[in-house]
Amino acid sequence: MTDSIANWTKSHFTNEIVPTLNGKKVTLMGWLRDVRLHGNLAFLVLADREGDAQVTVLKKNSPKAFSKLAEITRESAIAVKGTVKKTDKTQRGVEVILDDILLLNKSKTPLPLEVNEKVPAELDTRLDARVLDLRKPRISAIFKIRAQVLQSAREYLTENSFREIETPKMIASATEGGAELFPINYFKKEAFLRQSPQIYKELMTSCFEKVFEIGQVFRAEPSDTTQHLAEVTQLDIEMGFADETATWTVAEGILKRIYSDVAKNCAKELKVLGVTLKQPKKMVVKTYTELLKQIASKGLKLKWGEDIPPEGERIIKELYDAPVIISEMPMEQKPYYIHPHEKDKKLSYGFDLIFEGMELASGGRRIHDPDMYIAGLKSKGMNPKGFESTIEFYKYGMPPHAGWAIGVDRLVMVMLGLNNVREAVLFPRDAKRLTP
Amino acid sequence: MTDSIANWTKSHFTNEIVPTLNGKKVTLMGWLRDVRLHGNLAFLVLADREGDAQVTVLKKNSPKAFSKLAEITRESAIAVKGTVKKTDKTQRGVEVILDDILLLNKSKTPLPLEVNEKVPAELDTRLDARVLDLRKPRISAIFKIRAQVLQSAREYLTENSFREIETPKMIASATEGGAELFPINYFKKEAFLRQSPQIYKELMTSCFEKVFEIGQVFRAEPSDTTQHLAEVTQLDIEMGFADETATWTVAEGILKRIYSDVAKNCAKELKVLGVTLKQPKKMVVKTYTELLKQIASKGLKLKWGEDIPPEGERIIKELYDAPVIISEMPMEQKPYYIHPHEKDKKLSYGFDLIFEGMELASGGRRIHDPDMYIAGLKSKGMNPKGFESTIEFYKYGMPPHAGWAIGVDRLVMVMLGLNNVREAVLFPRDAKRLTP
Repeated sequence: MTDSIANWTKSHFTNEIVPTLNGKKVTLMGWLRDVRLHGNLAFLVLADREGDAQVTVLKKNSPKAFSKLAEITRESAIAVKGTVKKTDKTQRGVEVILDDILLLNKSKTPLPLEVNEKVPAELDTRLDARVLDLRKPRISAIFKIRAQVLQSAREYLTENSFREIETPKMIASATEGGAELFPINYFKKEAFLRQSPQIYKELMTSCFEKVFEIGQVFRAEPSDTTQHLAEVTQLDIEMGFADETATWTVAEGILKRIYSDVAKNCAKELKVLGVTLKQPKKMVVKTYTELLKQIASKGLKLKWGEDIPPEGERIIKELYDAPVIISEMPMEQKPYYIHPHEKDKKLSYGFDLIFEGMELASGGRRIHDPDMYIAGLKSKGMNPKGFESTIEFYKYGMPPHAGWAIGVDRLVMVMLGLNNVREAVLFPRDAKRLTP
Repeated sequence: MTDSIANWTKSHFTNEIVPTLNGKKVTLMGWLRDVRLHGNLAFLVLADREGDAQVTVLKKNSPKAFSKLAEITRESAIAVKGTVKKTDKTQRGVEVILDDILLLNKSKTPLPLEVNEKVPAELDTRLDARVLDLRKPRISAIFKIRAQVLQSAREYLTENSFREIETPKMIASATEGGAELFPINYFKKEAFLRQSPQIYKELMTSCFEKVFEIGQVFRAEPSDTTQHLAEVTQLDIEMGFADETATWTVAEGILKRIYSDVAKNCAKELKVLGVTLKQPKKMVVKTYTELLKQIASKGLKLKWGEDIPPEGERIIKELYDAPVIISEMPMEQKPYYIHPHEKDKKLSYGFDLIFEGMELASGGRRIHDPDMYIAGLKSKGMNPKGFESTIEFYKYGMPPHAGWAIGVDRLVMVMLGLNNVREAVLFPRDAKRLTP
């Protein structure tokens, strides 16, 4: 039921078919999104990843092709040869008069998901039929923007002397402690999927100084929320010979760069999504203790040491319509590798970044002294034994260092105002979902 | 035993200290690579990731700093404030006259690995002390070049309309079949680490058309060779509405771009490594059957259908000093998703790419028809049941498509003439090695 692509070559994406091509022979390939028959005339909508084009079929011109149309179901993969014609009958001022058509792969009916989204489908239905879902211009736009986010982050960091690294996904010990680890059977030894590149990126400051990694981290998080996934893409930076304040400058710079690149290079996609990007304002730095008072003055009383809940994050957004660094966070909220504050051991040099009312990043100055590192592990009830191969390197000139991690999926979610982080991930993984 | 970095900020990398900065105040940070005392004068070699600089300490200028020098061990993390001075006494024509010094983290002695590599150490010793190993200019250079390889690949593909994707690392079924899978305990369900993004990148052609992914793949390969690892970085492309010949053009273009960018942007690193890059010649395409005859004429007789062994790959390099595509490979050597050849079912549209006498990439035209896909699975003794969620998408207009995968670690190895793939990976993973 399929023709061979043989020597046909796609000459244009559909968005490249413009009136100035009038008279030109083109070859389009994509999916039959719609078809309307009017006696001896048919109008096809051929869609590809960049949009769609109207293909007009005249029975008298191509009787063989015309007779074939009846068997072609919607969302079948097709190829079309034709001639571009200026017209005032279509919105884009152009149509393609068909010369020949190939049916490359006939689609089964009914479709498990309508690509011509007249009635919005449930997220679960959409994720089950994700490949069809991703043919929708609105959904495709999210991933065009996501690719731009990653590209801009890489460019910004490379231009600022950060070196890209790739550190192991399979590790021997739990970086962040806790139970949310996926165990692996590693050649009959116990191993885990990393929860973060924390240990390795820190070590890399002791040779490459300024590094970044964009990669997956894994959390066996059983909770079913709109913000958590089992497989997450994380953007990590780490800077040697620097303290946390230097990393704030990078966070501010990278957000500005990402937002301005997306506004410039993804204008079409933002329009499809109906999103107007608001460029981030100048970053604000406030201590945890200060913020707690300000939040209380808005009616939400929190106990010192407590995690700031989503409601508190919303108040922070009201107070400061800008990215906010919460500095000097309580040590009890921060992991063992965060440096305690010199003036008060209950405080730390750890911070969170609240952006658009959501915790987007987390970071801090790290411990670089090996004895203090061991004390840090013990204070969190962890066994230094499991970290021997790491601690060893702290004894050979580990520099003072600091860094942060941004959740990429969450950044895309916040940026585009999506209401579930799954919208920002091609094939999300959670406790219930392992396929497709 | 350490000073606080306090308000000091690194102003320059060592390679930026040049005679034209004469008289300028600078702050350097890095590791004490060497120290020589001459009475009231001391010469320090301060090394950072970009090279090293001579720091000259005059006792009369800074008596406190001078007295501190004795306690600073080699490879300690230090910070230095000083004044740049033109001189004809150092190779680079410049020194830094010390004003002040901080000991940021004192190094333990003896070192587990000498960074001033006078006697080359065994690879295992080096990997155990990898962070110190990575301070060596020669080893650091490899990873500067690796980062450039990845950057050039991304740029080339993005410029050629490929969209970057990230597909799941945790999957429900074995893509490539076989036993070399790492099982995961996934919320009490059976799951695996992916051996390749094969299934997902193919599916993505059915919405995004042209895609690429650079990510890790996992193989529980027990064999201990210089070319295999358990965690590998793979560069994957996949093109919808295209056949294998279109992917060859991309392979040729990407290799050219990578080689020319590395030659241009990593000249210093190539020099440190003593490598002269030979730009790849025009790609040659030969069928498996033709090549078998040519290899035989050079004295190596192989049975039709047999895998071409390393010796054969070396002969191919002798015959054609260029990247060679081995086309029309035997179907029995290729996985189930490769499209059988139309003229002979023993042949396939699968190919390998031999580059510098080594198999660098593997790819082919894929099956896009759902019934043929099921037949393909069965012909390789695999159960279509495990692939139901994949096969389903083949029924809704899956386009004809083709692609390839290049091993990034192997590409860096071949490019720089390294004799073990572990040299090209920060923290290699194999059956014996899970740390550091």
